[in-house]
Amino acid sequence: MGYKELNAYAAPYKSELLNNIIPFWMNHSRDMVSGGYFTCLNRRGEVFDTDKFMWLQGREVWLFSMIYNRIEKKQEWLDMALHGANFMKKFGMDALGNWYFSLNQEGKPLVHPYNIFSDCFAAMAFSELYKATGNQEYKQIALNTFNNILERQENPKGLYSKAYPGTRSLKNFSLPMILCNLSLIMEDILGTEYAGRTIRPLIKEVMEVFYDKDSGLILENVTLEGKFNDSFEGRLLNPGHTNESMWFMMDLAVRNNDHALIDKCIDVLLRSTDNGWDKKHGGIFYFLDIKGYPLQQLEWDQKLWWVHIETLISMAKGYRLTGNEDCKNWFETIHEYTWKHFKDPEYPEWFGYLNREGTPLLELKGGKWKGCFHIPRGLFEIWKILE
Amino acid sequence: MGYKELNAYAAPYKSELLNNIIPFWMNHSRDMVSGGYFTCLNRRGEVFDTDKFMWLQGREVWLFSMIYNRIEKKQEWLDMALHGANFMKKFGMDALGNWYFSLNQEGKPLVHPYNIFSDCFAAMAFSELYKATGNQEYKQIALNTFNNILERQENPKGLYSKAYPGTRSLKNFSLPMILCNLSLIMEDILGTEYAGRTIRPLIKEVMEVFYDKDSGLILENVTLEGKFNDSFEGRLLNPGHTNESMWFMMDLAVRNNDHALIDKCIDVLLRSTDNGWDKKHGGIFYFLDIKGYPLQQLEWDQKLWWVHIETLISMAKGYRLTGNEDCKNWFETIHEYTWKHFKDPEYPEWFGYLNREGTPLLELKGGKWKGCFHIPRGLFEIWKILE
Repeated sequence: MGYKELNAYAAPYKSELLNNIIPFWMNHSRDMVSGGYFTCLNRRGEVFDTDKFMWLQGREVWLFSMIYNRIEKKQEWLDMALHGANFMKKFGMDALGNWYFSLNQEGKPLVHPYNIFSDCFAAMAFSELYKATGNQEYKQIALNTFNNILERQENPKGLYSKAYPGTRSLKNFSLPMILCNLSLIMEDILGTEYAGRTIRPLIKEVMEVFYDKDSGLILENVTLEGKFNDSFEGRLLNPGHTNESMWFMMDLAVRNNDHALIDKCIDVLLRSTDNGWDKKHGGIFYFLDIKGYPLQQLEWDQKLWWVHIETLISMAKGYRLTGNEDCKNWFETIHEYTWKHFKDPEYPEWFGYLNREGTPLLELKGGKWKGCFHIPRGLFEIWKILE
Repeated sequence: MGYKELNAYAAPYKSELLNNIIPFWMNHSRDMVSGGYFTCLNRRGEVFDTDKFMWLQGREVWLFSMIYNRIEKKQEWLDMALHGANFMKKFGMDALGNWYFSLNQEGKPLVHPYNIFSDCFAAMAFSELYKATGNQEYKQIALNTFNNILERQENPKGLYSKAYPGTRSLKNFSLPMILCNLSLIMEDILGTEYAGRTIRPLIKEVMEVFYDKDSGLILENVTLEGKFNDSFEGRLLNPGHTNESMWFMMDLAVRNNDHALIDKCIDVLLRSTDNGWDKKHGGIFYFLDIKGYPLQQLEWDQKLWWVHIETLISMAKGYRLTGNEDCKNWFETIHEYTWKHFKDPEYPEWFGYLNREGTPLLELKGGKWKGCFHIPRGLFEIWKILE
């Protein structure tokens, strides 16, 4: 078994992380006037909008804390994390401890905490920063936020939900998926036993409830009873979500020493990638309908940065853990597509949004949803998996 | 002046309406089991989803009532309108008289009345149906709904608004735009004097408040004081909205015998079209940023059916009213693009969504947003303007 055959990729992933991506965010995203990070950065790294989106504030705090914890204790990385954390602490939460969706440059709230993922990324940020600093205040913010997420779990949109209760009650894959990752990141704060108790039902949610036996694929929305629902939402596939969640699952499988789970993850990953791959132009579609019907998402055929880098992580991990040759072949195919189309040959950082044919749809390097997260996390994970 | 030079287009627009589009909806959209209309229809007209979106229910009732009132008193058209109206009356409103956003096939509410445009299209529907039938009940529904819209006007999303109050209060162009059209449709119900009082401030909103003097373009969102705001929302241009609103404005200008307003409409229309036209691939972009910055809307470069047919109406009207040669030239350019790319050469009805290059992105003929409305209304208007 050629478990080491992908080793040669470790060096370019490491170099891209340390020499291209991290310097880009260090140089361009720090708001020296109001604190926090700019994330709306054009092709050259210039700020084109000053709004502060809490998902991305939290993710960047996490990323700089994580590389400080796991690569090297560089003071400038910790300072960068603290720079964002101070802004988040000061302006990010409402009186009930819910994290806003967005703030203006100075930190005044723009969009209410309708979206629970702001809280998920805040919890990630402050638990990773606690590991870096030992500061109990950060631990407490992470714990309070985590408990708040669990309380809101059944009704994450709260008052802002537009769904009329009872007619068609669906649950969404994103929250259990992200909680798998978050529980593992927070394990040393939560304690092994408590983390284990949190993780067990989440694995079941992902691998049984959202898993569609007939297709072998993961559905993005299912009924409260875990059944397929023949509606726009029920038919929706999000190959990027599926593929990202499979490396979260493999991490949990390694933690639990569960070989059967690893095999099942690889099975889902390969089916999802085969199903999601654009046979005509290459790349993985953003959304698909499981019955092949027209989608509501007009961006369905676009190729997004996070979908591709997350799939690369899963393929690398699957190959590293089992030597599965399909994982290796997919890694190489997607690596080639990703570096050719997403990496900007002229300026630092990568493009985020390509049209179906693989050319940039937007020239931004960061925006409302793309920040300092998927690309550097993916480069780090793949470097470490393959070296 | 060659005011009659576009006359030759009247016949194909009429024929397309009566021989292609109307039969498509007559044949495929009536739900014989639960009432109301199916609008999720694939390329061949087959139902692929049974949800009932209230915008489209109201619009189809309006359309069939309108052709009954203005083309010919065909019983089957009135029956078709009544078929939808009965379903709307029975299931469409909550206890406060607000119209839901969507229902399931049987009429159970799926999505709360978070969106005031359901009410706008319901008011259009029942006022046009009142004209067709003289039934006082329909008049009352239209009036109650209209008054309800005016009451909700300052805060149309109500509880469902995610914007934090005070930090950046913007108002959106869509509501004043549609109220211009609705007030004119409802003029004989509202009374000439009341309609006039409603219309006057709306014309000012559209032509002064949302009009950006520096660029000569209409902004999609402005501050409550009518100023430009340098944010994603504030920088947004929606050329289709602008161009559609210009024929609503020209109708109001004709009503008020206001020649200066017609000239200003044509000026805005030509600037907006010139700015919105894709010089590389043809067609009009869906969204643009007035500063040319990256957009949040991933569908920004797509070409949508309603944008093109609405622009054709405005160009035809502008030419007919003034003989402006630029309107004529644009009519011919956009006519060519529209009939070449949107009209399906193999099956009835037109495609709705093209990618930037002009090939279909989705093969649907109807969906969540495309129903029996823009294409038949546009074909009718252009036929009548040019004949």
